[in-house]
Formats: sequence, structure tokens, C-alpha cells
Amino acid sequence: MAQAKENNGNGGSGTAKTGMNGEAKGSRPRRSYYQRRPRRAQPREAAVPLHIYPLGGLGEVGKNMTVYECCGDMIIVDCGLVFPDSEMYGIDLVIPDFTFVVQNKDRIKGLLITHGHEDHIGSIPYLLQKLDIPIYGTRLTCGLIKNKLEEFSLAGRTKFVEIVPRQKIKLGCFTVEPIHVNHSIPDAVAFAIDSPAGVVIQTGDFKIDYTPLGCGPTDLTTLAEYGQRGVLALLSDSTNAERPGFTATEQKVAAGVHNLFAQARNKRIIIATFASNIYRVQQIIELAVQEGRKVAFSGRSMVNNTAMAQELGYMHIPEGTLINIEEINKYPPEQVVLITTGSQGEPLSALSRMASCSHRQVRVGPGDFIIISANPIPGNEKSVTKIVNGLLLLGAQVIYESMYDVHVSGHACQEEQKLMLTLTRPKFFLPVHGEYKQLKKHALTAAGLGIPHSNILIAENGSNVILTRDEIKLGEPVTAGAVMVDGLGVGDVGNVVLRDRKHLSEDGLVIIVATVDNRTGKVLAGPDLVSRGFVYVRENESLMDGAQSVVESALDRCVEEHVRDWNSVKTRVREALSSYIYRRTKRSPMILPILMEV
Amino acid sequence: MAQAKENNGNGGSGTAKTGMNGEAKGSRPRRSYYQRRPRRAQPREAAVPLHIYPLGGLGEVGKNMTVYECCGDMIIVDCGLVFPDSEMYGIDLVIPDFTFVVQNKDRIKGLLITHGHEDHIGSIPYLLQKLDIPIYGTRLTCGLIKNKLEEFSLAGRTKFVEIVPRQKIKLGCFTVEPIHVNHSIPDAVAFAIDSPAGVVIQTGDFKIDYTPLGCGPTDLTTLAEYGQRGVLALLSDSTNAERPGFTATEQKVAAGVHNLFAQARNKRIIIATFASNIYRVQQIIELAVQEGRKVAFSGRSMVNNTAMAQELGYMHIPEGTLINIEEINKYPPEQVVLITTGSQGEPLSALSRMASCSHRQVRVGPGDFIIISANPIPGNEKSVTKIVNGLLLLGAQVIYESMYDVHVSGHACQEEQKLMLTLTRPKFFLPVHGEYKQLKKHALTAAGLGIPHSNILIAENGSNVILTRDEIKLGEPVTAGAVMVDGLGVGDVGNVVLRDRKHLSEDGLVIIVATVDNRTGKVLAGPDLVSRGFVYVRENESLMDGAQSVVESALDRCVEEHVRDWNSVKTRVREALSSYIYRRTKRSPMILPILMEV
Repeated sequence: MAQAKENNGNGGSGTAKTGMNGEAKGSRPRRSYYQRRPRRAQPREAAVPLHIYPLGGLGEVGKNMTVYECCGDMIIVDCGLVFPDSEMYGIDLVIPDFTFVVQNKDRIKGLLITHGHEDHIGSIPYLLQKLDIPIYGTRLTCGLIKNKLEEFSLAGRTKFVEIVPRQKIKLGCFTVEPIHVNHSIPDAVAFAIDSPAGVVIQTGDFKIDYTPLGCGPTDLTTLAEYGQRGVLALLSDSTNAERPGFTATEQKVAAGVHNLFAQARNKRIIIATFASNIYRVQQIIELAVQEGRKVAFSGRSMVNNTAMAQELGYMHIPEGTLINIEEINKYPPEQVVLITTGSQGEPLSALSRMASCSHRQVRVGPGDFIIISANPIPGNEKSVTKIVNGLLLLGAQVIYESMYDVHVSGHACQEEQKLMLTLTRPKFFLPVHGEYKQLKKHALTAAGLGIPHSNILIAENGSNVILTRDEIKLGEPVTAGAVMVDGLGVGDVGNVVLRDRKHLSEDGLVIIVATVDNRTGKVLAGPDLVSRGFVYVRENESLMDGAQSVVESALDRCVEEHVRDWNSVKTRVREALSSYIYRRTKRSPMILPILMEV
Repeated sequence: MAQAKENNGNGGSGTAKTGMNGEAKGSRPRRSYYQRRPRRAQPREAAVPLHIYPLGGLGEVGKNMTVYECCGDMIIVDCGLVFPDSEMYGIDLVIPDFTFVVQNKDRIKGLLITHGHEDHIGSIPYLLQKLDIPIYGTRLTCGLIKNKLEEFSLAGRTKFVEIVPRQKIKLGCFTVEPIHVNHSIPDAVAFAIDSPAGVVIQTGDFKIDYTPLGCGPTDLTTLAEYGQRGVLALLSDSTNAERPGFTATEQKVAAGVHNLFAQARNKRIIIATFASNIYRVQQIIELAVQEGRKVAFSGRSMVNNTAMAQELGYMHIPEGTLINIEEINKYPPEQVVLITTGSQGEPLSALSRMASCSHRQVRVGPGDFIIISANPIPGNEKSVTKIVNGLLLLGAQVIYESMYDVHVSGHACQEEQKLMLTLTRPKFFLPVHGEYKQLKKHALTAAGLGIPHSNILIAENGSNVILTRDEIKLGEPVTAGAVMVDGLGVGDVGNVVLRDRKHLSEDGLVIIVATVDNRTGKVLAGPDLVSRGFVYVRENESLMDGAQSVVESALDRCVEEHVRDWNSVKTRVREALSSYIYRRTKRSPMILPILMEV
């Protein structure tokens, strides 16, 4: 593999405007034309290193964020959030740790966004609370971000630059070209990031759909051009790295939904899908129009996203089709399609409210034909099942199984990942966006195509990946991590608080309060026992009476033995009560002794 | 479908010993031989009703329990548990409500068990704490129950009757024939329950495996015989009712694991599977012997179950094969197979400890080839992923994807369910064991075979299903429900306690303590604020100082306004603090004001 080592892996030197030089160079040595091409002298800047700092999205599905640094300039790609796991009690969402970005804020030239999903844009408001940077995104992406910023009153003060595929952007020493890719939201792009050290391609989330709706296929030509001219490194979406084959085209969903519409006949159709999947919503609208049905939207994000998509021209609803949800009961069921949120079983979503008969306008019954046009994201299976059961119990017909072709993934499977690797021919490969097991599979896929193991790196959040034309290596890591957001609090809930919440959730707590004379140590009032989340006190009087005696005698012994250090008193009381409760119940509630001195 | 109505649906009258009469009768009218058979006079007892009370297992996966009543006699089939859902904070397990059984304890002739899985036997110790009844089960099933009862010191005092397929048992007016079925544990049976009202077949958990390991296929002949003589009702396993086709044979796993053993070459093999799947463990042992590897077991239930299976003759390990887990490091990796628990990602299981480097004897590394021979049960996906990531990070090769044929289900898919329905030809059909969506699908499958909709009933826990030869109907429901077990407490955690645990888990709590003069209402000590699970106090001093002032001024106002009713004072303080905290943090911790009077 000597040729690979001798390849530049970059053609950007001295031609920063286009980011390419005229000659085709590749990093993959197996094809014979590698030999045929003349070797050029190394460009002067070839030794300049490029640093890649992934701050999120590695070893996890979500909070994607990557910082690039070259010649002292920095750019950021994406700034997403991740939803809390089941151990993060009470947490609303999780964002990346911005310490490294804040430390380097003067070097940052801009924030580039691949597409408008939460795991790529959701943390932007929190980042903008710490620093001002211009945001670069396609039209729909900018629209979605602006909506979000308005909730945080940050919309006015932020500079947006609308980008268009194939139109390059100059940011410090970087020249970035957005490249159109298919995904489950319109206007998604990959970025070809040209720097003095070479070209890096970051795919963002992508799939390759040869027959997509409302846009062309992923721009394979431009990707191939970069591949031919030399790509130093590829950072590619690993979400579906475990799945063999090709992700099906969105047109398959069109056909599946079309068949179901025919089956629904004289029933009302309720269809749940992702509010951001504008193509799918558009297609459902078109089917509704064909069938002479009116369309209503339900769910805040569905109403907001579709309004914005119409305004920006991404969605076209023929005159007279759209009705307000308040009006749906004025039409016979066979004339209505209701498009709703809640396909992931979210407890407060419109579909969930329909299933539990608490939706203000929609009563589900045997006259309803309900389609869940989504697969449960791992972790959501039980919530979706709960909603399906609820809807079936109300007598509705519910289509939720994968066999009906009502959903396709937005991410590339193994064959598409191979195509991306083969077209771009990177010298170095970094699988990104995924759990470790997915990154690992993606790495194996790349190795199977002949990329040397030493040129593949599975980095982690906080890694400092240093790339030169000859080498990929890890430098000193930077600060990275998960910052938990709970209500207005950003990062004020840490491990201690979470541990307490977990403890409280498992066995509740028992509070012991007593007022003591601070000279004699004698108890003047109490001890009173108050419990929450422990047992139903009225039905457990003997247990609680026993607990009271245990506490009283522990306090008495402290007085007798002249223990006057309050912390020791508390410890003794806590231990006595804790062992009594465990013996009687095999439970360990949190025990909080509070002594008030008078 | 008039014939169906005229059919007896029962042949048991007057011949209680065999439970059949000589003539073949069926309840399914579509075949021509129905017409050829002479109609008999109705048996005298034909009007006797049979009651079926499902106390668990309907609308849920788990805690299966069914009571049958006829002529004043009762029998129970199964007594399982279910694991808590994510909203049942701190709950260890959930058992059926035994109220109805306890009310009728003098009528109960016995507890019949289909097989030894937790969702069919797990609640037996709790039932036996309330009443003494003999337990009828096959040898392995009895062995597993005895192990369980020993933990509760109930083993000695319980009468066990070992049953054998095709040997009938007389229990009051019931004659029960156990029928061999395939499942993912040996010694599983269905029951043909003959009563004066007719024959009911309850399948238990089953699949139809034509080439099973270690036993014959499901006894289709006996099922067909019952079908021919007339089955009043079928209660059949709905777990896989959503899956088309046939469940694959366990031999497929044999082939899959065999191939993987060849791939593992010079690595140590660690294979995780269900401890109760004795067949699979046996087969792994045989493969190990073939490859010249020693076998060790890890995990308490694996060690216990395999010891008992050997003792009872269900498992055969050649001399010199089994080694203690303490010894595994004495052998080179290519000579070891470690069979372990933890295939569902259980946090305290052996495999989980291996993944987190906290297993006492096993250190996982690049020399390990790990096979997870199970699919995640819905809800466990994330825990399994966490373990897979951990093992991969340690450098092990991990086989976890379904494509490797390392697992097959133990439950019948749609085609097997159709076979069961077709062989037994029940007049009435009750889908059991499943979420509502699965019961519904199973009902549709049955309807597709020609069983009239009016003869199919989706009951629920607590239903009182009344069957006569002509009719299926619902009577007054009986008490049924979920009783939560937390430590030693059975049913002492109810909705109030759970609601508190949920509240505490989401936002923690703030306690306000003050000692007040009970004559003047003046505060003598405090108010002190103590919080847990709310914010990290040291980093939120201004918030907590503000809270302190809010509480103080609320108390001051009470003194000024001469509010002396302590409940009103508490309410005022709680409301003031609650609104302050929400305004500042958008969180709603539990607020507990405690006033001590001196």
C-alpha cells in the first residue's frame, strides 16, 4: 500500500478558491490507473495539520457536533441534542459540553448545519447563549433553526447565511462546498471541507435514493469528483451500519400508503409520521387529494413545520384541501385524512391523546383507519405498543407492522455506505454518528473495501484527531461530555442530583425531624417521621410505629451517652432506622434526619 | 353456520374418566363429513356452564393465570409474574391479585402448571403464602418450582404431583390430560380440560417444531383426537400472533452455532442464552465436546438450572467436560466455552459484569468470541446494546445480530396458530397470553379460518367467561389486577406511593423545616431548607438564598396576618416557594413544609 502513503490525499494547496487542483488524485491503491498518473511534487502546505474534534455523536445516536481546526481557524459542523436515557431522571434533553468551543470562540468562523433534525440543530440555542456565530444552512434548515431560536428570543440577533448545494463558502482558511444528499427531511447536505491540509468530506445523515420525492438523488457526481481529486478523510453516517443491503426508496412508502388508502374505503384516515418528513407529508396530501379527501394537521410540530414548509415553498397544498382540525367532524369520515404527530409513542403527543381519549377534537372509534408511518426508534417500542393497544381497544383498525411498507429509513445501509466510500476514496476514514457497535461495523465495511486498518479510526467524543497527508493520529483530548438540561437549568443537574433522584425513585424517603435543646441535647419537639414514596402509611401503621420507637431510642441513647456532635447524632439515627427498615421490608429508602436547635 | 350451533362442542358427559365419548364430534362446519355423522341427543349435563376467569396474561405479556370453575369445583392453570414497566418505580415484580382465589379457596382442587418459565410459575410462592394447594407439573417444572419455593421456605409444606403427558388427572369434576408441546424449555404441556360442560384446551406457551432437540414434536395426534371428538373452547398462546409464517426449528440454532464455533477458531467462546433453555445449553455442550473444549457456567440461574437439569436427567455432560469457572484461566482460550446468563442485558447479570470489567473470574478481551443466543425482549433493546458496546470496546468479537441464526422463538407464529386451531376445531376461541394487539391479531387469524366472530372472545383480566355448549358470554367480572412486590412488601406500594416516586425522580424535593411557638406562631428555629435531587446546592447559592427569603417572608406574613392554622401556613409556604422555584427554573420539585411546635 505504498502508493496510498505517497498520495497527497489533498489537492487544495494554493487554489483555495476552488479547493481543488487540476489533477486527479486518489488514496485507494487497488486500481491500475493509480500507477498511470504522474506523481506531483508535494505542495508546500502539505505538512499543515488538520484537527478534527468530535464533541458529540460518537458512541451515541444524537448530539452530533464536530469542530475542525486548521491554521488557527475553526469551523463547527452541526450542533444537535440527544434525548435522555432512562437513567437520567427528570432530564429534558442533553447537549454537548461547549467548554472547548467557548475557549476558542475567537477562532470560530461559523457553524455549518447539514440538515434540520434535532440531533443536528437542537443544541444551537444553548450554544448561542454562550457565543455569537453566524449559521450556515440551506433554506429549510435555516427556517427550522429560526423557529427554534424564536422560543429562546435569540432569533433577531443571529446572522444566518443561506447556502445552496455546489456554491462554495469561504470561512477563514476553509472552503466548504455543500453537496446535496437524500435524507428523511428536505434540503440535507454533506460538506466537502477544503483546508490547507486537504479535503475532508462529512456526509451528515444521508441515504442514496435513486427515485426520491421532490428532489434529485444524492449528488454522486460531485462526490465522485472529489474522490478523483483526492479526499484526505471521510466522516460518514453509521446509523444503519449493521444493516446489509440498500435502504428502500421513499417511493415505496408512496405505494404502500396508496394501497392502504384504497383499503380504508369509507373510514376516516389518521396517519402518524415525523413532522419533519416534509416529503412524506406532501405525498400523503397528494394521495388525499386524489381520493377527494380533506387534510387536517394535528400536533404542534406538525402544524408549525407544515406551515413553514408551505411558506418556504417546500410543500404545496391545493386550494380547498386543508381544513382546520376543529372542522373535521363536519365532514363524513371518508372525506378526511388527519396527519398527526406521535408516531414514536411520545406520551403527550396528539396520537397518544387520541389513544387515551383525551384529544380535544378527535374521538377515535371503529370508523377510523390509522396508519403509523414510522418505525419505533430503539427505546420507544413499548410506548408505541401502548398507543397501538389503546387505539385497537377503541375499535379502530391500526396499521403498524413493518410489512405494510409505510416507512423507510433515512439512513444509508451497508451497500450505500460502500458506495460513499468507493466514490470519495478517502485516505483516512472516521465512522461517525452511531453507537460504538455501529461505528465498529462501519469500520469493518471500510476495511472490507481495502482501506488499511491503520487508516481507519474510531474516535470518541473529545478526541483530537490530527490529520496530515501521511498520518492520522490522536492528540491530547479536549473537554467533551453530556450536559443535562432540566427546565431552565443547563448543567445544574449533575451526578449527585441524578443519584439522589434514582434513589428517591426506587424506595422513596423517610424524613426525621426533631427540635433539640442546643445546651442539653434534649428533644423538645418530635421526633416526627414523614415519608414519601416509601409505603402507604395508613396501611402500614405497625411498621411506622416501630420506626418511631427506633428513632426515639436512638436519640435517647445519644442523650445518655452525651453525644453532642449533631452529625454523629444524625448518623446514629440514620443507621438505626435504616437497618430496622431493611430488616422489616428489604428496602432502603433515603433517610434524612433534620435536627433543629433552639 | 347452523351446524356449528347445533354441535355439542363437547363429548365429556357421563364418561368423566376418559373425558370423551365414543363419537367424533366437531364444531367446525366446513367439511362434508360433518353432515355424515349422526346427531346425538344432547347429553343431560349439556346446560352446565363452565366459567373461565383469566386473572393475568390478557392485555399483557406475563403473569399468566387462569381459573376454571364447573359444578362448584375450581382448578387453576399457571401462576406467573410479570416484570414491572418503566413507570413502576422501584418495583421488583408484579403478581396477580389473588382476592378471587382466596375467596374461593375451599373449592380449588389444584394448581396445574404448563411449564417452568417465570411468567407461568413466578407468583406461586406468593399464592402459597395465602393458601395451600397441590401443584401439578411435569418433572422439570416441579423441580424449578421447588427451587423457587426453597428461597421462600415453602418447599417442605407443599404437595407436588408429578404429571406425565397423556396420563389423565382427576380434579373434582375436571379430568385434565397433559399434552406434550414444544417450547423453549423442556417438559412443556398443554392441558385438555374435560368438564361436565365440555372440553377446553389451554395450550400454554407452544410452538410446533417437527425436528426439536431432546423430545418429540408437539403431540399433534392427541390434539387432533380432541378436535375430532369435540372441543368446546381453545385458549391459545398469542405471543407471536403478529408474525406470519412458522417459527424456525431449534435445529437451525444448532447449525448457526456450529458455524460460529468454526469461526471462533483459537478464541475463547462466551455464549449467553436463557438459563431455562436446557435444550440449547445441551446443544452448546455437545458442540463444545466435538471441538474439544471444556465448558463452564456463569450466572446464578445458569448454574442452578443446569445442576438441576443434570440431576433430573434432562442434561448430559460427558465426564471431564465441565470445569468450574474459577478454573477457566488455566486453559488456553481455544479450549474453553463459557455459557452465561445476561442475554437480555440485565444490569446485574454475569455478561453485564463482563462488559463492565467487574466480573470476578472473567476478563473479556480481543481473545474472546462472544455469541448472544437470544433476541432482546421488547423493552430490553437498549440494555442489550449497552452490553454489546461494552464488549466490543474491550476488543471482543461479538455476534448479536439476528442474521446469524443463533436464536429462534419459543412461540407459535401465525401458521402454527392456524394448525392448532385447525386440529382442535374449537367451537369457541379465546386468544390468551399477549398484549391486546396480539390477541386481536390472533382473533383475526381465527376468524380467517371460518370461526364465526360471535364465537371469538377477547377477554380481559378479571373477565368471567361463561361457556355452555351453545353460547359464550360474559358474567359479572371478578377482582383481578396487578399487585406490586417491592422487597418484602406485597401490595403495600400503590398508586399514591408510585406517584410520589415518579414526582421525586423527576424534580427531587425541597424540605422546609421550622420550629414555631405554638402560642404566638413565631418561628423559633429555622426555617431551614434541605433539598435532594433538585439542584447541586453549592453551585446554585443564589437560587437557594432566594428560596430562603421567599419562605421567610411567607412565614412572616402568616404571623402578621395571624394565620394560626398550621395547614394553611404550610399551604402558603408551599405555594410561595413552588411558584418562585418554577419561575426561576421551570421545575416543580416536591415541596414538603414541616412545622414543629414547641
